[in-house]
Amino acid sequence: MENFNFYSPTEFVFGRDRENECGAYVKKYGGKKVLIHYGGGSAVKSGLIDRVKKSLNDAGVPFVELGGVHPNPIDTKVYEGIELCRKENVDFIVAVGGGSSIDSAKAIAMGVPYEGDFWDFYSGKAPAAALPVATVLTIAAAGSEGSGDSVITKVDGMLKRGAGSDLIRPRFSILNPALTCTLPAYQTACGVTDIMAHVFERYFTNTTEVEITDRLCEAVLCTMVKEAPRVIADPNNYEARANIMWAGMVAHNNVCGVGRGQDWNSHAIEHELSAMYDCAHGAGLAVIMPSWMEYVMNHNVMRFAQMATRVFGCAMNFENPAETAKAGIKAFRAFLKSIGMPINFAELGAKVEDIPEMVRKLNPGNGWGFQPLKAADVTEIYNIAAKASV
Amino acid sequence: MENFNFYSPTEFVFGRDRENECGAYVKKYGGKKVLIHYGGGSAVKSGLIDRVKKSLNDAGVPFVELGGVHPNPIDTKVYEGIELCRKENVDFIVAVGGGSSIDSAKAIAMGVPYEGDFWDFYSGKAPAAALPVATVLTIAAAGSEGSGDSVITKVDGMLKRGAGSDLIRPRFSILNPALTCTLPAYQTACGVTDIMAHVFERYFTNTTEVEITDRLCEAVLCTMVKEAPRVIADPNNYEARANIMWAGMVAHNNVCGVGRGQDWNSHAIEHELSAMYDCAHGAGLAVIMPSWMEYVMNHNVMRFAQMATRVFGCAMNFENPAETAKAGIKAFRAFLKSIGMPINFAELGAKVEDIPEMVRKLNPGNGWGFQPLKAADVTEIYNIAAKASV
Repeated sequence: MENFNFYSPTEFVFGRDRENECGAYVKKYGGKKVLIHYGGGSAVKSGLIDRVKKSLNDAGVPFVELGGVHPNPIDTKVYEGIELCRKENVDFIVAVGGGSSIDSAKAIAMGVPYEGDFWDFYSGKAPAAALPVATVLTIAAAGSEGSGDSVITKVDGMLKRGAGSDLIRPRFSILNPALTCTLPAYQTACGVTDIMAHVFERYFTNTTEVEITDRLCEAVLCTMVKEAPRVIADPNNYEARANIMWAGMVAHNNVCGVGRGQDWNSHAIEHELSAMYDCAHGAGLAVIMPSWMEYVMNHNVMRFAQMATRVFGCAMNFENPAETAKAGIKAFRAFLKSIGMPINFAELGAKVEDIPEMVRKLNPGNGWGFQPLKAADVTEIYNIAAKASV
Repeated sequence: MENFNFYSPTEFVFGRDRENECGAYVKKYGGKKVLIHYGGGSAVKSGLIDRVKKSLNDAGVPFVELGGVHPNPIDTKVYEGIELCRKENVDFIVAVGGGSSIDSAKAIAMGVPYEGDFWDFYSGKAPAAALPVATVLTIAAAGSEGSGDSVITKVDGMLKRGAGSDLIRPRFSILNPALTCTLPAYQTACGVTDIMAHVFERYFTNTTEVEITDRLCEAVLCTMVKEAPRVIADPNNYEARANIMWAGMVAHNNVCGVGRGQDWNSHAIEHELSAMYDCAHGAGLAVIMPSWMEYVMNHNVMRFAQMATRVFGCAMNFENPAETAKAGIKAFRAFLKSIGMPINFAELGAKVEDIPEMVRKLNPGNGWGFQPLKAADVTEIYNIAAKASV
């Protein structure tokens, strides 16, 4: 196990009706003037934004609001938010929605006290300060409610880049599984895929003898395998929604990933897909991740065999572990298909002829992770993804 | 899943040589005058206390020290610590050691700013303030490095009682697995047993459909089953020590226990053993917990069968799940025996004739947890424990 720090100071406020406590928690964590930041109309139409506003009013905390966050959040909205916060003397941001609203809120939080361009933080600079952020989560997927990470797309060039700092870890996150019940099956499955991908990026490591984090990863994965079909079959299954929602946090606050090398190549490869086609991140991952697995499997067959047996219940082939590994990857792709995810370019709406452009933009070369990848490797992974089937 | 709050704000600083950063972290978290609080001579003899002092000197943070914490920490030492902190204007406590030093430090932390008797907090009162606490952990067992809990024994009457508050969650905890390599096999096994017990107390619940927390519990348990024999066979196995150490934190910061009813009857029943015989808490749990399992198994046979198959690899007997459940309990007790734990009263040094006195002190009756227990039930569990064998 490698040396590590683990720090997840967010207070998680989980369960039915907890959004009504938002104002009280803002007050607890010192907010005096709030920006409510959210996406499309669903949070408004459902009455959620009104409930959040009421709880702020009840707590005596004034607020302004900024909606219209894009599903892959973009820099122009961040600039708008920074300007609004400065003008209105906002000192606390509450993101209502999924990863997009939260990531946009985190970008605004870093940008407000910074004199330069907030994009600096998405180009490698570490922030020195940030407004406190909190979340009212409506989609179990990104894990941003418990992470210090944020991903923003720069419209000019459609560059999708990440930033990370403990300063943008939410002070509190309200997780009410009932809020996710209105989510369409497709978005629900995208979320499940994203959660599984967050774990797989940590699971495929070159660090040996990390049983506890292996097992924690498998705990989240087994939960997805059990709960996702239940929630696809019955969107109003609160218990299944609750298990997925808590698993989504555990998958990405890094308790499953400490002390070990991580990969994240599938995320990088997928980001070019969602940047180019504006598809859902989870859908892109459903296409990319099993293809990446096929391509890198021989780097450590036994690790894939472990996944196959422990997560997907495949029988271990002791004479030929590679067959078990392949069966596990096949089971993963079949699982994704079964919950309604695309598994190849055609189903996603991606085009083979764009592969060179995506590889160019991704610009691999230094190589990192489980199996370092160069441009030719990434091209081949896109090619596998293009024609994948179950 | 029940509504819950989860809050674990401690910064965990994990790995080789990290104790040398203690001073820097005290400074980061605002400490100006430290009490170093520890137990017996081993932390001194090993040079650990000197390294902690050096790191405080290097950071320019003055300190006083108070050693001699008893393995089941007692109130008289707490009073001594409170007096010392007040006299020396201590504003930050660093506990060096295992759960005893940490729990004693937490008690002192609550007592210093309180005008009344600190024992009030161990009698149900919630503290309004506490000095910040940090830890340098030398024993993987209690999980106190990541919890808001503390257990203290009142010498007058040998009453062992607990207190809990977010105020006493450590600001940071330094976990260097190498520091646990000098721990004798018996204490190591006691720690493993305690870690498993912390999980089982959460695992046996009447809350249904809590797959994610079930799986997280099983992750810790499976890790213990794999790693404990390796560390008993080779005390210097750093990797096994590291897995056990991180699992010990995960087992008790409640990420495995949120949103579900918990039991804790075995802990209560054991506390009377260690209060009466001053035995190691883990050893007492090794005697009590499998006996408790046997007694309550019929309350939910399928839950015990789940444990048997998922944790101990027992084959599921679909015609007679109770046989699987029994096999799992048997496997647990055999595992404890294999790592050198006592499994009955004789091996622990307890006496059958003291059972009525322990039941009287425990004073069950209101009943709580997985299967509420009355005095007759507890008596029977002690009786099973008295004569247990593998």
